[in-house]
Amino acid sequence: MSDLPSAIEIHEEGPREGFQFEKKIFPLPDRVALVNALSHTGLKQIQVASFVSPKHVPQMVDSAELFAAIEKVPGVKHTGLWLNEKGFRQASAVENVDLNGTLLFYASNAFALQNNGCGADEMRRRQDDWIQLYDGAGLAISSVYIMTAFGCNLQGEIPIEAVTENVRWVLERFGSNGRSMPAIYLADTVGWAVPTEIERRVGAVRELAPTARIGLHLHDTRGVGPANFYAALRMGVDLFDSSVAGLGGCPFAGHIHGTAAGNICTEDVVFMAHEMGIKTGIDLDGLIDAALLAERIIGRPLGGRIMHSGSLRQFREAASFEKHA
Amino acid sequence: MSDLPSAIEIHEEGPREGFQFEKKIFPLPDRVALVNALSHTGLKQIQVASFVSPKHVPQMVDSAELFAAIEKVPGVKHTGLWLNEKGFRQASAVENVDLNGTLLFYASNAFALQNNGCGADEMRRRQDDWIQLYDGAGLAISSVYIMTAFGCNLQGEIPIEAVTENVRWVLERFGSNGRSMPAIYLADTVGWAVPTEIERRVGAVRELAPTARIGLHLHDTRGVGPANFYAALRMGVDLFDSSVAGLGGCPFAGHIHGTAAGNICTEDVVFMAHEMGIKTGIDLDGLIDAALLAERIIGRPLGGRIMHSGSLRQFREAASFEKHA
Repeated sequence: MSDLPSAIEIHEEGPREGFQFEKKIFPLPDRVALVNALSHTGLKQIQVASFVSPKHVPQMVDSAELFAAIEKVPGVKHTGLWLNEKGFRQASAVENVDLNGTLLFYASNAFALQNNGCGADEMRRRQDDWIQLYDGAGLAISSVYIMTAFGCNLQGEIPIEAVTENVRWVLERFGSNGRSMPAIYLADTVGWAVPTEIERRVGAVRELAPTARIGLHLHDTRGVGPANFYAALRMGVDLFDSSVAGLGGCPFAGHIHGTAAGNICTEDVVFMAHEMGIKTGIDLDGLIDAALLAERIIGRPLGGRIMHSGSLRQFREAASFEKHA
Repeated sequence: MSDLPSAIEIHEEGPREGFQFEKKIFPLPDRVALVNALSHTGLKQIQVASFVSPKHVPQMVDSAELFAAIEKVPGVKHTGLWLNEKGFRQASAVENVDLNGTLLFYASNAFALQNNGCGADEMRRRQDDWIQLYDGAGLAISSVYIMTAFGCNLQGEIPIEAVTENVRWVLERFGSNGRSMPAIYLADTVGWAVPTEIERRVGAVRELAPTARIGLHLHDTRGVGPANFYAALRMGVDLFDSSVAGLGGCPFAGHIHGTAAGNICTEDVVFMAHEMGIKTGIDLDGLIDAALLAERIIGRPLGGRIMHSGSLRQFREAASFEKHA
């Protein structure tokens, strides 16, 4: 247990992941209300929306309006996602967007081809252009994502070398020359990871890049997400993406049913962390209220667990009252 | 990773837990169909129904008819649950019931009072009567359950001593005098457990009773079930209860919403185990089919994850076909 971190940082992805996944476009005031509720829970980073082609992702057509309408809360970063220069320029033009310099890699060639129209090698080469672009904008590069780092619905098993070759590329460009090392995220994009692979792959990345902070972007597609979260904590990982109420999923991932679970659920992992003495800085009950708001907006039962069973606070308070009555 | 067991035994509780939790009584042929489907997946033990007062649990009024109607599959035990002598006599009179001698303890006094009308101490004393009763029936005692072993909605925190005092009682009566040691199950009846407490409490029981096989009855009430399962595997635990599709829950547990998650989901933990090289003897795809059948019977989306996203077999086969095409 000694390897458990004393505190972890959780980045909320629910608003972007969740509403992007849904077929319907939800009213702007509802989406604003969810982001505002999340902004008052102690979360330090919330991904609000993406700046992508409205032809491909019509749900994100009004991202600029959404950002303009949200309440800015001191200490909370409201981030956006983009996949090309046009998207980055759009995001840069919106005042409320907290720009994060992010690079994107794929461990699966087939998934890169499907999502980006180029292979994993070409995707890697393109990241040099992104570095130039971010440099030109005076934006530090804070994180790199390695997508499909644990397996791929299109390509099957992903060898560990397909992950580490991307890490080597990052090492060549960062950590010297005045470029500080970004956080390296391993993304279980389509839910193939299990704890033993979390251990193997986090271990391999850490060995290769001991100065890099490692993050995990976990999905709960096959019910292993919480176990992967715990396995990562045991490896000392202290940086996670998650979604309130378990919102989201990958619309391009080829799941056989439409209702596949999305990211690991923020309030569930916050609960787990707190109960193990790990600080998150987040108000669990406020987060549960935000999850219930998300469920009312979406209009069907969402996959989060503790939002439906309640935190232990009420039971502890009642028990304590009994004892002292 | 070296402590992971090479094989685990999973006991299915879905039919009893699931249908008992629902308000509605489902048609007998549906419940028979689910048990029969489960009986062909490689599961070795399935809890079919309980023999309890139809006044308190009307869903279980036709348990005898259900047992009489199911297909007996060689190598599969179909067990029942009872809480008093009358229930045990009823179960004993039904040919298809595979009787399991089980003792029942509570770590929470308040929960014992609510569920059994007597405190934890009195409940312990009553187990001597059960030993006599089972002896009289020539039935070996194969398992003891310690309920609310990790926390209680009524009593709050449960000190570890409230668990170990029951283990001590068991040690006084078993392991000598020709009585072999039953498996000791720690039950997270209302979903308070987290991985660090799994480690502490399993460790304490093992230290006290090194010859006892330890089992875990885990609920996924607050999204920590899969992490607790993995923590238990790391402790070498190789015996688990679970429910297909995540069926079930505890109707008496005082949850604030009716839809709280039930037991850990059989097919999700089977998937996790297989992907980590741990054998279960269970056909995952057959189990997913049974989970989908359970969902059709219940008539609303159930909490299992992989039943909605599919196993990796299809993706691996397609990827392998691509590679060799």
